[in-house]
Amino acid sequence: MNVQQVMETVIQDSCGDQRLPSTGDVLVAGEAGMKVTGIVTTYMATADVIRQAHAIGANLIITHEPSFYTGADQLDWVQQDPVYEAKRKLIEECGMAIWRYHDYMHMAQPDRIYTGLIKELGWESRQVDYPYPWIYEMDSLKLRDLAEELKQKLHMDVIQIVGNPDMTCSRIGILVGGGSLGLGKESMPMELMREQNLDVMICGEITEWTLCAYVNDAAMLGLNKAMLIIGHERSEEWGMKHMADWLQPLVGEIPVHFLDAKEPFLYL
Amino acid sequence: MNVQQVMETVIQDSCGDQRLPSTGDVLVAGEAGMKVTGIVTTYMATADVIRQAHAIGANLIITHEPSFYTGADQLDWVQQDPVYEAKRKLIEECGMAIWRYHDYMHMAQPDRIYTGLIKELGWESRQVDYPYPWIYEMDSLKLRDLAEELKQKLHMDVIQIVGNPDMTCSRIGILVGGGSLGLGKESMPMELMREQNLDVMICGEITEWTLCAYVNDAAMLGLNKAMLIIGHERSEEWGMKHMADWLQPLVGEIPVHFLDAKEPFLYL
Repeated sequence: MNVQQVMETVIQDSCGDQRLPSTGDVLVAGEAGMKVTGIVTTYMATADVIRQAHAIGANLIITHEPSFYTGADQLDWVQQDPVYEAKRKLIEECGMAIWRYHDYMHMAQPDRIYTGLIKELGWESRQVDYPYPWIYEMDSLKLRDLAEELKQKLHMDVIQIVGNPDMTCSRIGILVGGGSLGLGKESMPMELMREQNLDVMICGEITEWTLCAYVNDAAMLGLNKAMLIIGHERSEEWGMKHMADWLQPLVGEIPVHFLDAKEPFLYL
Repeated sequence: MNVQQVMETVIQDSCGDQRLPSTGDVLVAGEAGMKVTGIVTTYMATADVIRQAHAIGANLIITHEPSFYTGADQLDWVQQDPVYEAKRKLIEECGMAIWRYHDYMHMAQPDRIYTGLIKELGWESRQVDYPYPWIYEMDSLKLRDLAEELKQKLHMDVIQIVGNPDMTCSRIGILVGGGSLGLGKESMPMELMREQNLDVMICGEITEWTLCAYVNDAAMLGLNKAMLIIGHERSEEWGMKHMADWLQPLVGEIPVHFLDAKEPFLYL
């Protein structure tokens, strides 16, 4: 199979014949006609991921997020940028193709980023019937124990929270990646918390003047609300991990590996 | 003085006769004609700040950030919201007026949020000549020592970083609050790092797919780049702290106090 065939196979499996008129899911490096020797799935094609992919014989990275630091992988501002140039050189030396698989992955029914995360958490039986895989009902537990569970299962050293660590919670929302910014509507995560009577929202990206301020006030006003911030990468990496399992049978003999792009943060 | 007179005095002192045709700097609670008995300055009028302000006899809070969880304090979505209703009740019980002073504060020359932060850090002599107060030149030091200095001076328990804690740095950028999101241009913080040859960017808000990914790749590619994330509140609170000093002489006998809205996060 060549790169084009792999891309088509993945999109077909995700969304059938549906095609977006405009999408960020583009080949940002390599040629569509390249014969694929091995595939790596990952949250982000960082420099380390590119090196590791090359070392295990892969020449196609399927990345969920951009490779060149803006939402649409814009290249107007990167000319003569030393970071861009060093990365581009590495990509060329490795003969690597990089395809972004983002919009079609979230468009799949159900959203395959959530499917991977829920599998990693083992929360399949906790999912509440709702149009999106956003709501989970747990046996009542303390917020700090929920944070501990996430730290262990998602391999995190530190978790950032808003609220009282000793509050009990059972109705939990999850908005992964940039979804916790509201998908174009700042109030969306707060309206979801209210309408679904959620105690806790687990978030990818945040801004401090929206949900964070709402939950902070709620806690100060004696309402049972909290948020757990696991970040964009830790909330979405698992969709790409479990992609390796469903992709392998679709590409026959081509080896498929997942590489963890890893949380970008250290906590000092 | 009444609330209207205090607002006018602050704007006049900040920006002279300049007035914005449209601004989020509005009175979100109370009446313009209220006689002011005491003023509190703060980053955000949280429920705790409102209670504390009332306890010390203030009836006007000057807040930098919104009170009702969206950038423009929109009220269409909050009707029958339990957090909003509880906060509105507290505000009314305390007879509190709340005025947002954000746009005019950043418009002042120099931007008074930066002035407060730089005073708190004691970095006045480090500032590099540039159209904005964004660039600082230090004696070479390790990133982990810079993080330690910020933790001590800005009263933080934990600081989130990207990059190698042992790298040395001397040219440092600061983009406070939402400014580190690029002020409408995702690539702005990266272009600033490149053009000003910055080793480290100290950030308020972040998104993981932009500057964070850029710095992460740069570190992996052997370039001397890092970021320190202090957050929106910890980067902007100090402008409101030092506002109390310059506001006091403008309002005569009315007592002016700063109240720290405090970092909303705990780290587990």
